[in-house]
Amino acid sequence: MARNTTVKADPNAPAITEMLAKFVVSHPSNGWSEAVDMEAHRTFANWVGCAIGPSTHETMQAALAGVMELAPSQQASILGRKEKVDMANAAFLNGVSSHTFDFDDTHLKTIIHPAGPVASAVLALGEHLNISGRELIDALVLGIEVSCRVGNAVYPDHYDRGWHITGSTGMLGSAAACARLLKLDAAATQMALGIAASQPIGLREQFGTMTKPFHPGGAAKAGLMSALLAKHGFTASKRALEAPRGLMQVFSDKTDWSEITDNLGQSWEIALNTYKPFACGIVIHPSIDGCVQLRNQHSLKAADIASVTIRVHSLVLELTGKKTPGTGLESKFSVYHSCAVGLLYGQAGEHEYTDEVVNRAEVTALRARVNAIVDDSIDEASADITIRTTDGQEHHIFIEHAIGSTQKPMSEVQLKAKFVDQSAPIIGAAKADEAWRLARDIARQTGLKALLAAAC
Amino acid sequence: MARNTTVKADPNAPAITEMLAKFVVSHPSNGWSEAVDMEAHRTFANWVGCAIGPSTHETMQAALAGVMELAPSQQASILGRKEKVDMANAAFLNGVSSHTFDFDDTHLKTIIHPAGPVASAVLALGEHLNISGRELIDALVLGIEVSCRVGNAVYPDHYDRGWHITGSTGMLGSAAACARLLKLDAAATQMALGIAASQPIGLREQFGTMTKPFHPGGAAKAGLMSALLAKHGFTASKRALEAPRGLMQVFSDKTDWSEITDNLGQSWEIALNTYKPFACGIVIHPSIDGCVQLRNQHSLKAADIASVTIRVHSLVLELTGKKTPGTGLESKFSVYHSCAVGLLYGQAGEHEYTDEVVNRAEVTALRARVNAIVDDSIDEASADITIRTTDGQEHHIFIEHAIGSTQKPMSEVQLKAKFVDQSAPIIGAAKADEAWRLARDIARQTGLKALLAAAC
Repeated sequence: MARNTTVKADPNAPAITEMLAKFVVSHPSNGWSEAVDMEAHRTFANWVGCAIGPSTHETMQAALAGVMELAPSQQASILGRKEKVDMANAAFLNGVSSHTFDFDDTHLKTIIHPAGPVASAVLALGEHLNISGRELIDALVLGIEVSCRVGNAVYPDHYDRGWHITGSTGMLGSAAACARLLKLDAAATQMALGIAASQPIGLREQFGTMTKPFHPGGAAKAGLMSALLAKHGFTASKRALEAPRGLMQVFSDKTDWSEITDNLGQSWEIALNTYKPFACGIVIHPSIDGCVQLRNQHSLKAADIASVTIRVHSLVLELTGKKTPGTGLESKFSVYHSCAVGLLYGQAGEHEYTDEVVNRAEVTALRARVNAIVDDSIDEASADITIRTTDGQEHHIFIEHAIGSTQKPMSEVQLKAKFVDQSAPIIGAAKADEAWRLARDIARQTGLKALLAAAC
Repeated sequence: MARNTTVKADPNAPAITEMLAKFVVSHPSNGWSEAVDMEAHRTFANWVGCAIGPSTHETMQAALAGVMELAPSQQASILGRKEKVDMANAAFLNGVSSHTFDFDDTHLKTIIHPAGPVASAVLALGEHLNISGRELIDALVLGIEVSCRVGNAVYPDHYDRGWHITGSTGMLGSAAACARLLKLDAAATQMALGIAASQPIGLREQFGTMTKPFHPGGAAKAGLMSALLAKHGFTASKRALEAPRGLMQVFSDKTDWSEITDNLGQSWEIALNTYKPFACGIVIHPSIDGCVQLRNQHSLKAADIASVTIRVHSLVLELTGKKTPGTGLESKFSVYHSCAVGLLYGQAGEHEYTDEVVNRAEVTALRARVNAIVDDSIDEASADITIRTTDGQEHHIFIEHAIGSTQKPMSEVQLKAKFVDQSAPIIGAAKADEAWRLARDIARQTGLKALLAAAC
């Protein structure tokens, strides 16, 4: 059995785990600009709406039924529902819910959906600890900083090899945020990060199944439990992230340590967060945006359209290349379906990704006329679209940045409309309005009770 | 951000996930030879003793305190203790306990400790479901078959890159075993394996900390929860193990599918399981065995020993090269300390790996005279040892296979003695004797109650 055990490893990595722990423990409350704090509130409020929306979806019914087998205690709330469960499973369930419609926030540099793992854990633990809204936002900003910086350091290699980076870095953000809420010292926070480092969750192979939203939920729970264990003296490697056999070198060939060490505490990843106008993977958004714009500019009807040709980066088809999706869930991974509904209905919200719409005759007929061409000279955040009409005209548009991107952010009005669209069918219009107001202004709230009363 | 997304992947893998699910569901009860069934009983009984032994250790106190934060329901027992917790956390805690002393079983082909993740989940779920002893052994054999075959397919690359293979394959064995106990059909079992595939747990970097035994505990819990979710219709990729972006291609460059497909249901990995005579990593065992043999052959005293030179495979020092351990836990990762106690006391049980012994003057003095030389021509299961005495003599021994290996298995008497040594200080001699008898014969028991009464 003798063999060569040489696997590449950099033994000279800086002490990332310790550095992040000290940062999370010591950074002052609200120690960032007003613009950053505003984006943190937009992140939180958008996440609350995204968790309420799917709270009665079959994914949540299955997840809740599985959790209920444990006869959990009633420590923390599930957004959009009446049941309570223990805080670890509340973190899990809210994390699952918030990603079920693929409608949550996106850190475009890494394609991480940062709120899911962190906000889910913060809300559950925070409810149990009876924290203030300010503490919630602080923990959210710091936790997201940890997971997104680790993501920056390993992206794209880590993602390319098949990890769903939201879950596989999210447990670190969750652990960091929970350690902050538990007021652990730097040494215990370092242990919390270390315990979490052994639990990366998520494979891209699961896209199109319920296990995709399992990932942020699982990461939220893993991070929360790691912090609870560290609170009681459970130990881990002090170099769990950066050691030659630590997480980052194990799950990525790229490890750019400067992405973590540079400007820590000065620049903020949450400031780069974006919110989806369309209920599907972010790489489809430029194509939908282009289709909707061409539709509106030229008053196109489906019957007028002879063919649609989209030129996109190869990643778009790798992630969303399902030509003939059979279910609503599968259709979220179909750029073809997404273009068809964008052209037909001028939008691509959750209602355009149901089983019924996927199999509607006018949708399948138009979908069949959408063609995709791979062109890696086009950025993965862009799309080039040409529509030929039955009367021989040709309409073209190039989308450099889609609506909802950092360059073209959603407005406050759009963000609130998205929140209400998702949550009103679940909790009613009045509570939806109230929940938006409270979530969007949570740092001024002395506690979380009013928000939870409105949102559950 | 355009880039090359090409990462190697084999799209032609056989349908491993489906194959394993059908196998787990359909293989007949006790559908293997008497010898295999006996080894399954030895595996289970050894595991029970290894879980009882550390049940009051500080690792378990910290883990239990963390779990108690959730105010869990009282569904299932913790071996060696009076408390009960929900079945997922009982699986977690028994998994942690059973690996805390690094004294549990080893599948030498992969260095997987197979019982921890599987037996922990089976016992907890089995207690809740009130299963028979026969069902327990069936689930144990089938679960271990799944995790060890996946291990065979990816070892050594997967391990070399830094994964603690016990936890990173163990969640699959746990999911498979729990699916069997829950009587899921093949389709739901396939989903259970798929959900579990997103949750590989464990880094070698954690060796020497409490997070090492966290790994089998975390894997047990992850697999159990995956089966409970699948029972309620939660979905995952049908090709979660073998797809180009599935678990096995994501976490290993080596994927030998034939290790899973060949002779499935005919040859049994549990038949290759081994039990440790020494309370430390398996790679140190040949060195300790050699030191103990030379000590006894030549009646060596510490004062007689001028130097000890061990020639070992590089993996031995990579895993256990701590020259000056400061704590009992660290000393388990020191081949130097292990040789010293073997020479001084003729054994290396849990008592030889305490903080007190590590810092005892005669131990540190002799440890300083132990030298290690890397020689990759020597198998990692072997060791070449030379002792020079103060009067100029030289004693040499080459250990091809250590006691406790497949080639030199522990006898029934030795295995029972190990069980009683560990459990009697916790539950008393009479109950230890009773627990051994019941565990070693569990398939003849109509239920688990008698064993749990004796072992808790």
